Amino acid sequence: MTVGDIPFPQINPLSGVKLGAVGAAIKRQGRDDILIFELAEGSTVSGVFTQNAFCAAPVTLAKRHLQASGGAIRYLVINSGNANACTGDKGLADALAVCQEIANHKGVAVEQVLPFSTGVIGELLPLPKMVAAIPTALSDLKEDNWARAARTIMTTDTVPKAATRHFEVDGKVVTVTGIAKGSGMIKPNMATMLGFVATDAAVTADLLNSVVKRAADKSFNRVVVDGDTSTNDACMLMASGQSGVRISSSEGELYQRFVQAVEEVCTELAQMLIRDGEGATKFIAVNVKGGKTEDECRKVAYAVAQSPLIKTAFFASDPNWGRIVAAIGYAGVEGLDASRVSVHLDDVLIVDNGMRASSYTEEQGQQVMNQSDININIHLGRGEAEQTVWTTDFSHDYIKINAEYRT
Amino acid sequence: MTVGDIPFPQINPLSGVKLGAVGAAIKRQGRDDILIFELAEGSTVSGVFTQNAFCAAPVTLAKRHLQASGGAIRYLVINSGNANACTGDKGLADALAVCQEIANHKGVAVEQVLPFSTGVIGELLPLPKMVAAIPTALSDLKEDNWARAARTIMTTDTVPKAATRHFEVDGKVVTVTGIAKGSGMIKPNMATMLGFVATDAAVTADLLNSVVKRAADKSFNRVVVDGDTSTNDACMLMASGQSGVRISSSEGELYQRFVQAVEEVCTELAQMLIRDGEGATKFIAVNVKGGKTEDECRKVAYAVAQSPLIKTAFFASDPNWGRIVAAIGYAGVEGLDASRVSVHLDDVLIVDNGMRASSYTEEQGQQVMNQSDININIHLGRGEAEQTVWTTDFSHDYIKINAEYRT
Repeated sequence: MTVGDIPFPQINPLSGVKLGAVGAAIKRQGRDDILIFELAEGSTVSGVFTQNAFCAAPVTLAKRHLQASGGAIRYLVINSGNANACTGDKGLADALAVCQEIANHKGVAVEQVLPFSTGVIGELLPLPKMVAAIPTALSDLKEDNWARAARTIMTTDTVPKAATRHFEVDGKVVTVTGIAKGSGMIKPNMATMLGFVATDAAVTADLLNSVVKRAADKSFNRVVVDGDTSTNDACMLMASGQSGVRISSSEGELYQRFVQAVEEVCTELAQMLIRDGEGATKFIAVNVKGGKTEDECRKVAYAVAQSPLIKTAFFASDPNWGRIVAAIGYAGVEGLDASRVSVHLDDVLIVDNGMRASSYTEEQGQQVMNQSDININIHLGRGEAEQTVWTTDFSHDYIKINAEYRT
Repeated sequence: MTVGDIPFPQINPLSGVKLGAVGAAIKRQGRDDILIFELAEGSTVSGVFTQNAFCAAPVTLAKRHLQASGGAIRYLVINSGNANACTGDKGLADALAVCQEIANHKGVAVEQVLPFSTGVIGELLPLPKMVAAIPTALSDLKEDNWARAARTIMTTDTVPKAATRHFEVDGKVVTVTGIAKGSGMIKPNMATMLGFVATDAAVTADLLNSVVKRAADKSFNRVVVDGDTSTNDACMLMASGQSGVRISSSEGELYQRFVQAVEEVCTELAQMLIRDGEGATKFIAVNVKGGKTEDECRKVAYAVAQSPLIKTAFFASDPNWGRIVAAIGYAGVEGLDASRVSVHLDDVLIVDNGMRASSYTEEQGQQVMNQSDININIHLGRGEAEQTVWTTDFSHDYIKINAEYRT
């Protein structure tokens, strides 16, 4: 069950990007679990990766290959069902073997293949099964395969996730399309989150790099489900160049329109991760304004978004503003003057001058809490900076899903 | 239900410390909710308080009175059922009025009375009811009243909590006895935790101050249930001096024995808070060794202890070491070399050189996980520093208790 609908959009083929999937029974039979992207020659790729010190073998190798190839990537291979994390040298060798298999079939350098994995930590990849299945995925490669691709990378996700935008430039259409997976362990630094966003514009590797960093920061890095970050996460941006539109400078309107399309796709995907958060019954935006710095706004937003007490209160639709105020208070903002802080639930003023607002009634708060989408609007009353993060409530199902994931 | 037994100890009266309780129907009828400590003339008192920026009116006032009286406190008054937090100037006036009522009855200065409150945030104290009940509590004052006192300060606690130690000095017995309340919102900075520890030794206010700081740091500040800290928490240390044993220097064995007794009482109380943690089914000690600094050990210990994914896995008795490793990885230890990290569950080596230990079997892990008391022993392999925190699992009941607290 998701919070609100997560419709799967109509996705038009994106020239120069083909996708193929296959089931290799990595974790279980009867579902696709290997996805391959094929990018047209001349494509560029950039990405951001988990900052977890225990990053998984595919993350290590993908970063190495991106560097070695200068972003001239031709294939991405993603498996679900096994994270190939905490698997040491054997894990690295396995990830390399998967890349090599594709390189051999397609006659490209192994550094032009990027590996990604998501699933259980600490188990070796079932390499023979994967190698045996890869030719089938390669024979499945086609541009009109995004829906199957989105399903292939799912783990505890309950629905596939995709988003798309397009805009016209001099009669040519530029398309930006992305898919993502992830529904738990989500927070900054790309936790158990994989995102693959492609465009048919031609974009230099350097520009792609700054666009994907900024887009991830405004989208996937604002998502909090339970505060854990994983060993495997990545958000990749690929540009095939087949639309004939070339973006070679960060000046001008073309670049701005491209940035906006990528950010909209990433934001839509990130919010879908929240709506499909494990056991989530509410979509909560924590908007913090009036801080001296973005950093202190972020601290407050995360303290509120990560508080299990607030999250359980929201599950119960209980406008327990005392817990919100307590979280603001322990967020670690130096010299915070409580008497200048205000909090709204949507438009309802609940805390004013650090106290319950005299105009506030429990009924007003209850009305907002009964919604499935809720804004917590916090004003710190000490500056102009602001930050937003998105999160969910903690439900009985959250415990159930995570207590029973491996068994 | 608690994790293991929390027996209520035999408590011998502590000379110079009297306790009285009364029910004032602050939150509901039929239970004691006001506790008064009376300390013999010449007693000294010190304490540590919440660092939440929204500290409650009684915290503000207690700090002010401690300062103004130089620690020459005669009465402490504690109410459960209402936190008197986020109540602004009216809240301060109410807390002062409660102190004044006792001061008037007993002919002491109002600064010699310290107020404490615990309960719901943001509601005004029912002052008339409290003032009316105070004489009854004062008429109940006696040394042999610790059990009733421990019950009076309970909120969501399921059992009263007390601990006691004594030692002999030159034929005289020094006793240290404490009570505490708290079972959720518990973490460093004294979250919704109240602790009152008394001794019949004579101790200067300065010495008391350093002893209570250090004891709280080694006990209550190591307790993590859900990562939230409250607006109201305090741990107080009171010395009546009636045993005739005087501690006036931090040199020598007497001081050391006193420090040890206080720390043992505080540690026992802190661990009781965990065992009575909301919905807790497991007592988990996270022991981090081999760090470069205590600070980085603490970061790792908290990352593990606060991870909802780890806590739900422990609830399910699932030895999901991957989640532990992921938490170590995102704790923010600069330059952590994953390949030097090891993790034991009790004595079972589960992670070695950053990977699943080759000797490890799921059966071994399962055996440890089936226990109600579990040690997670983490070695970072980069130094000599160490830190321990205690926590619990996240259960269905945690969600239930916190989703339904106010309704």
